[in-house]
Amino acid sequence: MDIGTLGGLAIGFFVLIVGIVIAGGVTGLFGFISISSVFITLGGSFAAVMISNTLGRTFGMVKVLRNALRVRPMEAGRIISMIVTFSEKARREGLLALEDDLDELDDDFLRKGIQLVVDGTDPEIIRNIMETELNSMQARHEEGIKIFEDWGFLAPAFGMIGTLIGLILMLRNIEDKTAIGPGMSTALITTLYGAVLANLVLIPVANKLLYNNNQEILIREIMIEGTLSIQSGDNPRIVKEKLISFLPPEIRAQVEEETGERE
Amino acid sequence: MDIGTLGGLAIGFFVLIVGIVIAGGVTGLFGFISISSVFITLGGSFAAVMISNTLGRTFGMVKVLRNALRVRPMEAGRIISMIVTFSEKARREGLLALEDDLDELDDDFLRKGIQLVVDGTDPEIIRNIMETELNSMQARHEEGIKIFEDWGFLAPAFGMIGTLIGLILMLRNIEDKTAIGPGMSTALITTLYGAVLANLVLIPVANKLLYNNNQEILIREIMIEGTLSIQSGDNPRIVKEKLISFLPPEIRAQVEEETGERE
Amino acid sequence: MDIGTLGGLAIGFFVLIVGIVIAGGVTGLFGFISISSVFITLGGSFAAVMISNTLGRTFGMVKVLRNALRVRPMEAGRIISMIVTFSEKARREGLLALEDDLDELDDDFLRKGIQLVVDGTDPEIIRNIMETELNSMQARHEEGIKIFEDWGFLAPAFGMIGTLIGLILMLRNIEDKTAIGPGMSTALITTLYGAVLANLVLIPVANKLLYNNNQEILIREIMIEGTLSIQSGDNPRIVKEKLISFLPPEIRAQVEEETGERE
Amino acid sequence: MDIGTLGGLAIGFFVLIVGIVIAGGVTGLFGFISISSVFITLGGSFAAVMISNTLGRTFGMVKVLRNALRVRPMEAGRIISMIVTFSEKARREGLLALEDDLDELDDDFLRKGIQLVVDGTDPEIIRNIMETELNSMQARHEEGIKIFEDWGFLAPAFGMIGTLIGLILMLRNIEDKTAIGPGMSTALITTLYGAVLANLVLIPVANKLLYNNNQEILIREIMIEGTLSIQSGDNPRIVKEKLISFLPPEIRAQVEEETGERE
Amino acid sequence: MDIGTLGGLAIGFFVLIVGIVIAGGVTGLFGFISISSVFITLGGSFAAVMISNTLGRTFGMVKVLRNALRVRPMEAGRIISMIVTFSEKARREGLLALEDDLDELDDDFLRKGIQLVVDGTDPEIIRNIMETELNSMQARHEEGIKIFEDWGFLAPAFGMIGTLIGLILMLRNIEDKTAIGPGMSTALITTLYGAVLANLVLIPVANKLLYNNNQEILIREIMIEGTLSIQSGDNPRIVKEKLISFLPPEIRAQVEEETGERE
Repeated sequence: MDIGTLGGLAIGFFVLIVGIVIAGGVTGLFGFISISSVFITLGGSFAAVMISNTLGRTFGMVKVLRNALRVRPMEAGRIISMIVTFSEKARREGLLALEDDLDELDDDFLRKGIQLVVDGTDPEIIRNIMETELNSMQARHEEGIKIFEDWGFLAPAFGMIGTLIGLILMLRNIEDKTAIGPGMSTALITTLYGAVLANLVLIPVANKLLYNNNQEILIREIMIEGTLSIQSGDNPRIVKEKLISFLPPEIRAQVEEETGERE
Repeated sequence: MDIGTLGGLAIGFFVLIVGIVIAGGVTGLFGFISISSVFITLGGSFAAVMISNTLGRTFGMVKVLRNALRVRPMEAGRIISMIVTFSEKARREGLLALEDDLDELDDDFLRKGIQLVVDGTDPEIIRNIMETELNSMQARHEEGIKIFEDWGFLAPAFGMIGTLIGLILMLRNIEDKTAIGPGMSTALITTLYGAVLANLVLIPVANKLLYNNNQEILIREIMIEGTLSIQSGDNPRIVKEKLISFLPPEIRAQVEEETGERE
Repeated sequence: MDIGTLGGLAIGFFVLIVGIVIAGGVTGLFGFISISSVFITLGGSFAAVMISNTLGRTFGMVKVLRNALRVRPMEAGRIISMIVTFSEKARREGLLALEDDLDELDDDFLRKGIQLVVDGTDPEIIRNIMETELNSMQARHEEGIKIFEDWGFLAPAFGMIGTLIGLILMLRNIEDKTAIGPGMSTALITTLYGAVLANLVLIPVANKLLYNNNQEILIREIMIEGTLSIQSGDNPRIVKEKLISFLPPEIRAQVEEETGERE
Repeated sequence: MDIGTLGGLAIGFFVLIVGIVIAGGVTGLFGFISISSVFITLGGSFAAVMISNTLGRTFGMVKVLRNALRVRPMEAGRIISMIVTFSEKARREGLLALEDDLDELDDDFLRKGIQLVVDGTDPEIIRNIMETELNSMQARHEEGIKIFEDWGFLAPAFGMIGTLIGLILMLRNIEDKTAIGPGMSTALITTLYGAVLANLVLIPVANKLLYNNNQEILIREIMIEGTLSIQSGDNPRIVKEKLISFLPPEIRAQVEEETGERE
Repeated sequence: MDIGTLGGLAIGFFVLIVGIVIAGGVTGLFGFISISSVFITLGGSFAAVMISNTLGRTFGMVKVLRNALRVRPMEAGRIISMIVTFSEKARREGLLALEDDLDELDDDFLRKGIQLVVDGTDPEIIRNIMETELNSMQARHEEGIKIFEDWGFLAPAFGMIGTLIGLILMLRNIEDKTAIGPGMSTALITTLYGAVLANLVLIPVANKLLYNNNQEILIREIMIEGTLSIQSGDNPRIVKEKLISFLPPEIRAQVEEETGERE
């Protein structure tokens, strides 16, 4: 999990706690702990998520989360340098010469692409295979992200369900007017739990996963374009031009530098 | 219905009941039973679903539900193995040799595709026929899913309608102030019913149907790609590469193993 | 209007009335009649629909409604049989022989297509003309459906506007505390009207129109595909395969039977 | 502004006023006038619209409104007749003969297309130029419509902001219990203003603009298709068939008549 | 930041302050200052934005804002004139002659395109490179805009969270009935902050960024089309026709004038 995500979570909960302490003192905090609200909000919405998925997918969520929140350095520059180097080697020594470099490649997707090039596979088939793999990966990631989005949608609904349960019980037995205030207070805690769970945890995490997914797709698209450029024997300068077009201008300068000595 | 779905429903209702018992005692539970709320929430929203559909479609929903919630083993691996085997046989013995295997095929869609290949149909026409069938299936499934989504949208609306009816009746005859509490309590039960029906049953079930539909489409896409690869006489190794690109990496290894002895 | 739609409307209103009678007795029903609420909810939201449209379109809505809600037997099977028969005749006796059958065709769209085939029009132009007509029809239907969707969105808004008006009037003159209850009761009736109008009538009707529209588009797509298949001289068996791919499996068997004697 | 739009606005406000008079008498009406609510609702939401746009665009809105709400007779029939006439002339006397008719054309878009045809421009380039112009026009219109949609979204938000301000001020100084009712009454007026502004004016006007835009795009698409048909020397009968496919069946008959003498 | 945006912000806050002063007097203003509400609304929603992004992106937001809100004269006319001039020069003196003008070009994107033309790169590759760069720019801008949209969605949620916290604390300790009013008043301030932050600042700014982004994409599309037209040796008159099709009619006249002397 990277610093922004961890820091954001810490700051978010800190801010809410400070807000409570300012308004209600430190003792006010204890009034916000409610086991039955956790039960209904977290338990109920998690049950609804379970219904929407197979058991395997529900608990696979933890893996999705771990993979997707890990710190991912912006490595597009390094990959473009590598592809440009391959492209130069292929023009000098032929496509077969790339076979020696396959073992050093730490990315399965790019290695598979270069392997297909070395095997002399038809370019249309290479594009087909690599794009199918990219699309399938994207579809799987989006399914994982959808779990968090669905959960973020359901959590406030279960918060409201809990508050309705509290109100129905409280209103039925109104004799003691002084009990109304505390009764409503307790009923509202469930709505608060649902709102915080959704807006401070689930929705931001879903957004984060979406952003990481977009980064990963971008890198894969560079790899597909690069692999096909190597195969078609494009001029390495053109290969570089093509690939850095995917990057923001500020990163381009840096890539130019890394690969600059060749021109 | 698979374990995740059944278990989720059980856990969801269990959690709500426990929440009620913690807050209101076991006797509190009886206060949540309301025949007229069932009438308005379930009856009213189901009537609205009936209006949106023909009678056949409304009651066909039960079949959609049964088909779509059944446990569906991830059988993509087995199908890819089968297609690769066909592809090898076709290269050794010709496309006509596949006719013998048609009877063993337990999937109508794949059998129709292979039959068209054996008949010597034009590849463009085969793709056209298979994709039309896939798109039509997808459109029909999405119509079925839309019924549950519409219902999940209408249930809370009828919950609110019931609560409005209760409030209008109650507020008109306010003389006895002690009746306000219990009156509102009763009125709110309909909102609770609508919220639980939508968020614990209908929306999660619609999500589940959507997920199962995506799985089924994926398998059909593999079948289309495989059928056309067999016909075009692709190298079986390439056929396998093409088809496993549709799968997540963890399942690929297993498919590699099953079909591995051939290389 | 087919049975599902009529029955759903009857059941929906019956359920709401029963709900009122259970909670408030038969006399309770009279309290739900409010002319000024009809005025604001129905009148106000209809005025907003008028603003969005020309007069012609607003009152054309009635025709849209009548056409679109009429019972429409699933006649795709009959049309496919007819096209397959045409395809056989065209192969035996030439495309010109179809001219004799044009008068018997009761569908303008298909007749126009076959006429263009008989005239020897270029296939690209035939596809262009038929698809333009299909797209225009779809765009017009969607405009008609949008009127009901917009109305269904605006009705609850005007319900709320009416309740706000009631509350503002009532709250201003609070002296007699016993008038608050009945005042709020009356104010809420407008919200109820808006919610029932939208959720029991307008939104379900819009959904129904959408479903009928999809059915009509499906039949037209079959006609386009069939017309072009006849012209290109496809084998009638292939024509049938192509067209039944549009249908659900359970209807396919029946079509196979009707056209089965030919094989 | 056409009759439907003007009439709808008149009816809408009339209905609301009648609703108020029925419930609160004629004197009740005065209670709904509030300068500060106009300030917050109209002023606040207009300020938010200004932030979203350049000054030029914000005040260009008035022109968008005037152009887009003007009565626009359904002139597609006349345009099709004209194009069919051009097509006949071009076949008889050659494309250059159309130059004489250019001055009579009152539509810039069609004249530009025919001019390009007369100049002997490549069909691909003509399609490219005309479609670019159509897409740019559509994008500009949609930007104009978006201003009203955004405003319609923001107006109720500022209505709620005004009500919150009113409630916060009122609740702080509660000593005199009799002031609560009138205080809430005043606070709610701002919400009412926001709801009426959005649902009776802004959202319906945005819908109307959208509908007019669709009409205009339809006519331009007919012009593009017609221009290219003239250039390609299509049979005038086919040109007519192509172009009337864009129209609803009831208008087609009328166009058939106007152009009928030629066949 | 251009005048519309600055002016709109000033007017918006002015209008709200005037509304408060009219209803509550100048002293009423002080009651709307609440540090803990700023903490929860602004701090909480910003923390949620941090979770969704990497630290770099969160603070890169400031740059996005500065770049995107700067005054941007509608310079499409100037760019079209320049491209038409290039196109004439290229026809007279050959594509290589454009090399001399490259240094004067102040736009990186257009310079890169012309450079590729001068280098004799294949047109397909030039289109590929320029469109990739355009798409990547658009994707990056949309990510930046999404930050403001997400924030605008989260701010009212945290406003509601703050109000829930205030209500829960207040209701628990109701003994003194006179404290209810001021307690609710304070609790509602957080909702007000969230609503103003979202509807007067974040959502309008996101809309503004979206509009500026559309302008920038339009200019880049003109550059791509122009570069490829120069390379293909199109007649400069046709080049101009193609490019001004992207512009609104009122700006076209002005461009015609600037480039008019050539015809």
